[in-house]
Amino acid sequence: MSVTSDGGERATSLADAAVGGDRLALARLLTAVENRTPVAEAAMRRLYPTAGGAHLVGITGPPGSGKSTLVAALIAEVRRAGRPVAVIAVDPSSPITGGALLGDRVRMQAYADDPDVFIRSMASRGHAGGLAATSTAAAAVLDAAGFGLILIETVGTGQSEVEVAAAADTTVVLEAPEMGDEVQAIKAGLLEVADLVVVNKGDRPGAQRTASQLRAMLVAAAPRPQLAAAGETARPERPRPKRPEVLITTATTGDGVPELLAALDRHRAVAAEADGPPPAARLARAEAQVWAIVADRLRDGLHDGAHEAATETVLADVADHRLDPYSAADRLLAILRETAG
Amino acid sequence: MSVTSDGGERATSLADAAVGGDRLALARLLTAVENRTPVAEAAMRRLYPTAGGAHLVGITGPPGSGKSTLVAALIAEVRRAGRPVAVIAVDPSSPITGGALLGDRVRMQAYADDPDVFIRSMASRGHAGGLAATSTAAAAVLDAAGFGLILIETVGTGQSEVEVAAAADTTVVLEAPEMGDEVQAIKAGLLEVADLVVVNKGDRPGAQRTASQLRAMLVAAAPRPQLAAAGETARPERPRPKRPEVLITTATTGDGVPELLAALDRHRAVAAEADGPPPAARLARAEAQVWAIVADRLRDGLHDGAHEAATETVLADVADHRLDPYSAADRLLAILRETAG
Repeated sequence: MSVTSDGGERATSLADAAVGGDRLALARLLTAVENRTPVAEAAMRRLYPTAGGAHLVGITGPPGSGKSTLVAALIAEVRRAGRPVAVIAVDPSSPITGGALLGDRVRMQAYADDPDVFIRSMASRGHAGGLAATSTAAAAVLDAAGFGLILIETVGTGQSEVEVAAAADTTVVLEAPEMGDEVQAIKAGLLEVADLVVVNKGDRPGAQRTASQLRAMLVAAAPRPQLAAAGETARPERPRPKRPEVLITTATTGDGVPELLAALDRHRAVAAEADGPPPAARLARAEAQVWAIVADRLRDGLHDGAHEAATETVLADVADHRLDPYSAADRLLAILRETAG
Repeated sequence: MSVTSDGGERATSLADAAVGGDRLALARLLTAVENRTPVAEAAMRRLYPTAGGAHLVGITGPPGSGKSTLVAALIAEVRRAGRPVAVIAVDPSSPITGGALLGDRVRMQAYADDPDVFIRSMASRGHAGGLAATSTAAAAVLDAAGFGLILIETVGTGQSEVEVAAAADTTVVLEAPEMGDEVQAIKAGLLEVADLVVVNKGDRPGAQRTASQLRAMLVAAAPRPQLAAAGETARPERPRPKRPEVLITTATTGDGVPELLAALDRHRAVAAEADGPPPAARLARAEAQVWAIVADRLRDGLHDGAHEAATETVLADVADHRLDPYSAADRLLAILRETAG
């Protein structure tokens, strides 16, 4: 997709306005980023090198753990410290049309005239791996616009959603006391991506016991090396030097929330001191973004005028089981080789 | 990844054994498919053209709606009719290591010596879009092995998971009476992918009211055309000629389950009568599989000896914000062009 000089100019002024504090421009730019339009491309080429300083915090947990309420309480705490904060809510309410939870809208209202709070709901569709690429690109734009703390809220029951939260600099896994069996099972998987574990709804009976159980689980869970499957790109493991801390919060009253913010800042400070190559979470974010663009370009090539019919025939043959997927892949790679030549 | 003649022979005998009724061979083949090994490639090239006859049923819903119990009740009902049935449980319990819910294991025990029931839990990792590709490939293997009905159970709160269920021939969305607000919001998004809606836990107060509310929502929801975002490949819409039926079941007692199976069979029969190009769900499955293999091959090329260092440098530069993702994509495409030439 080539950027016309017109699209380029529009993107430049939109990007400059967004970075200059124009919140409507920022919202429009994020929409462009979500749709991967030419405007987004030109703007990202301009803004991306100025970003990289923000602290990305992933917040994930099962439905009912109180993620949205805790995010609202964190916003209030961050604002008390006079710091700007942005939220990307990866919206589980509609996988198709991307609606927003009622609570989201209420929260947005509360900060409608605070220029240092920016809340964005997003639902990614269509693209494989789109969620990671889109939320990462959106975070880069918010970073360039001066938001030094970016919270990414996802539901902790979907693979893509957990991956998005886990690719943050700091990953917070939320739990609540006395959740059902199904949710307990989910918990075990989630704990593996946690830098910080938070037992929310701390005023409920059993909160202390849940926290103790979680601490015991974290002691028992020896770090296990992840082997890449054959043919799969090995993902560098994020070093987890310390066992995750377990905190208790009551988001509705704000209890424990200052301690949570302090723990987030500490985690960030420790990571910032480390030398060496970029941390695995940053590499994973980079790879998700770049690969999504590469995949877009390749798909564009396959569905380009000259090759569209051949591509459609190959896919229809697989759908009808006249052709196996590996032979089909060979044919599409041959088409790509042609378009590259 | 080239298939050695040795791997090819092993794959052939494994595939033949799996299709011939050897359940251990089937389990091993599914593991190979999950890991996309060379054995899986050779086996898929052999088996895929013999598959395509099975009815794929996606079953999805929020945690707590009783999916697993309903799947167990459906298995019992299908077996009463003397038909074989396979289940692919896309396991939400661990996005990372892929554990299985306790209930799953109990269910597996119950059918341990019934050769016409095959239950498989799978958790896909690492690959973008891996869940759709893996579950589809696994379904093709089970199809080739003679399972005419394949249930794919996913949690209805993750984007990838919902996409997997929605790519089935028939998509069942499960709800339960009296779920909380967060879950209610999730429901709206889920309903859009439903061919059949099931209110489970029908013995609870409010089941009839929930069913009525759902019917009202489905009447209100006018079908809306989906526009592809700029730069995005348009996905053909699955035609939904009829408003989804709303059924009530009580999975624990089996009430309503025979009616559900009959509704599934009816939906299948109507689809089978339709002429024309392959339905969108089948095309989406084909595309997911083929694209995953294409992406694997391209990634292999990028991380091949000669290009690995260049690729790593590009990604590290993006991670450190020295290079924007679009310029990085240009560089990786140039590398791919080189490897293709």
